[in-house]
Amino acid sequence: MKRREFLKKAGVVAAGATLSPLMFANAQAGKYQWSMVTSWPRSLDNLFGGAENIANAVKAMTDGDVTIQVYEAGAQVGGLEVFDAVSSGAFEMGHTASYYYIGKDPSHAFFTTVPFGLTPKQINSWIESGGGQALWDELSGNSNLKPFLAGNTGQQMAGWFNKEINTPADLQGLSFRTAGLGARVYSAAGVNVQTLAGGEIFLALQRGVLDAAEWVGPHDDEILGLNKAAKYYYGPGWQEPGAAFALYVNLDTWKGLPADIQEVIATASQAANIQMLSDYTDKDPAAFKRLVAAGAQPKVFPDPVLKVLYDNWVKINDDLRNSNAMYKKISDSMMPFMEQVRGFDKINQFAYLNFIYKNT
Amino acid sequence: MKRREFLKKAGVVAAGATLSPLMFANAQAGKYQWSMVTSWPRSLDNLFGGAENIANAVKAMTDGDVTIQVYEAGAQVGGLEVFDAVSSGAFEMGHTASYYYIGKDPSHAFFTTVPFGLTPKQINSWIESGGGQALWDELSGNSNLKPFLAGNTGQQMAGWFNKEINTPADLQGLSFRTAGLGARVYSAAGVNVQTLAGGEIFLALQRGVLDAAEWVGPHDDEILGLNKAAKYYYGPGWQEPGAAFALYVNLDTWKGLPADIQEVIATASQAANIQMLSDYTDKDPAAFKRLVAAGAQPKVFPDPVLKVLYDNWVKINDDLRNSNAMYKKISDSMMPFMEQVRGFDKINQFAYLNFIYKNT
Repeated sequence: MKRREFLKKAGVVAAGATLSPLMFANAQAGKYQWSMVTSWPRSLDNLFGGAENIANAVKAMTDGDVTIQVYEAGAQVGGLEVFDAVSSGAFEMGHTASYYYIGKDPSHAFFTTVPFGLTPKQINSWIESGGGQALWDELSGNSNLKPFLAGNTGQQMAGWFNKEINTPADLQGLSFRTAGLGARVYSAAGVNVQTLAGGEIFLALQRGVLDAAEWVGPHDDEILGLNKAAKYYYGPGWQEPGAAFALYVNLDTWKGLPADIQEVIATASQAANIQMLSDYTDKDPAAFKRLVAAGAQPKVFPDPVLKVLYDNWVKINDDLRNSNAMYKKISDSMMPFMEQVRGFDKINQFAYLNFIYKNT
Repeated sequence: MKRREFLKKAGVVAAGATLSPLMFANAQAGKYQWSMVTSWPRSLDNLFGGAENIANAVKAMTDGDVTIQVYEAGAQVGGLEVFDAVSSGAFEMGHTASYYYIGKDPSHAFFTTVPFGLTPKQINSWIESGGGQALWDELSGNSNLKPFLAGNTGQQMAGWFNKEINTPADLQGLSFRTAGLGARVYSAAGVNVQTLAGGEIFLALQRGVLDAAEWVGPHDDEILGLNKAAKYYYGPGWQEPGAAFALYVNLDTWKGLPADIQEVIATASQAANIQMLSDYTDKDPAAFKRLVAAGAQPKVFPDPVLKVLYDNWVKINDDLRNSNAMYKKISDSMMPFMEQVRGFDKINQFAYLNFIYKNT
């Protein structure tokens, strides 16, 4: 780039003239070498790749002035310790899911996904255009973090089951791996919920410690080999109708950045968000086809099963609204948004797909 | 930004020492002042705003090194002359819809939308991850253009009608404003298709020159006042299940850019693409609610009407495949992608929304 060449030439000219110590201090200060911790093992290429996409775009857009070293889960901190590691300032950035931190405050779930909640297109719209970002900034700011949308899995699946789920009674006593607020909904329906890390799921399911497990969707589930441990593959992923991921930047680091670098990070994150969804939208159906060809039996939860889960969710959501002021505040933004968006979608995009799937 | 401050300080130091003419030539060369022509009147704030979002992000990310003046339709060239104006090099960039140029080659339609085609999430995925970008580069490169996805309306509506459409026979002889390949489908169904510019639609519909018209969706249609000229508002927009927009960059200009500026433009465009969809997803349902409150009657085309249109589309698509090698080549990428994506969506996101709309 000409601008960079100018900078280098100017440096040469200056070096041949008067050297200013301040000038070199500023030159050093103009370079940033950061670390990004993540919740993802490198093997889950679409998740870890989403974090890498941000680092690559930032480096390329700044012509190498800002470099970000991306670490897989466990390399620096555990996969579920990203929030604290960035909040404390030990690392400048983290790529994770905000709903991993509902133990701190269930309000964090809104910015990944809630049961029977927004689709990926809708959560992007709520956060980017419908007021969600300001609420996320407020919630995360309390923990010294600046959050950005930075990826989405697309609609997840309900998971892998070693028996058919025909009635709500079939859920009773089932040992099932899941996470987020969906775990509370399953518990209320009599499920014995286990929260295991991704790498532990396959063996637990194969050995019968689990009767069922959900992770993400076809592409990631195939990498974990879940189809080799259970044969019924249920949709829809009502518990995660699109999991959005977060880029957390330490808030002190963020506030100290010049405006152009702030814009570079925000824009790289927004682009990486849609790139990850595009990648899943491309890869999941291909993996789904392979899984079915290899013997997986695709199923859809019957309406009465979904209705029991939905009714449980309504109660849990009401309890959270009544007991947590921040949760209620965010919910008072998200829920009317969702209702209004659904009212239009129903007669438009949904009506379109309804025709397509029934008549073509 | 420290990097910029260094540049300025270096300049000051150098100015006090030895001045190099080459240095200033490079400084000038490192600055870019471009023009972007668009197909949008400024009043259509979400469309014109999508183009402005790119210019604003590029300026902010380069700390003002790259500035782009955005022109509304008609200010420099007509709204449908953007392709030629950028291809010729008269302007560096253009923001438009590739399907406005199906008169040059119907293959351009694939990169905006085709009847009964991909949803916004799906077209993003096909172009960004599924091989579509390489085909778009090839098609546009033949006209000296580098194309990027740069916005999406979301699923459009079928339009405003002054009478109910209950059977396929109700389409016969209807004077209807539409565009793109959908116009050919309507013609085959006996509709008298008129292609008017956005600003001409309201009067033609109000005066009875048109019996019906489609433009985009609730937010834009409300700006044009179409609800004041016809009362039945039909979904779904089968003819445009999400219109994707293009940022065209003159290919010679593009090839002459340093890698960091190329990355800035590509990333700004990808971010603006999802921002526009988020804005429409937020604004359309709100406008829809207002339109209905003001008397618009929402309707959904009956299945037999959609089926006649679908069957006509299948024939037109087959004819295009048989008569145009480039169209066939692109279609051979898009159609299997669409089939595979739908196979998974049907048991997952569609099944989810089907439950939501029927049971909650």
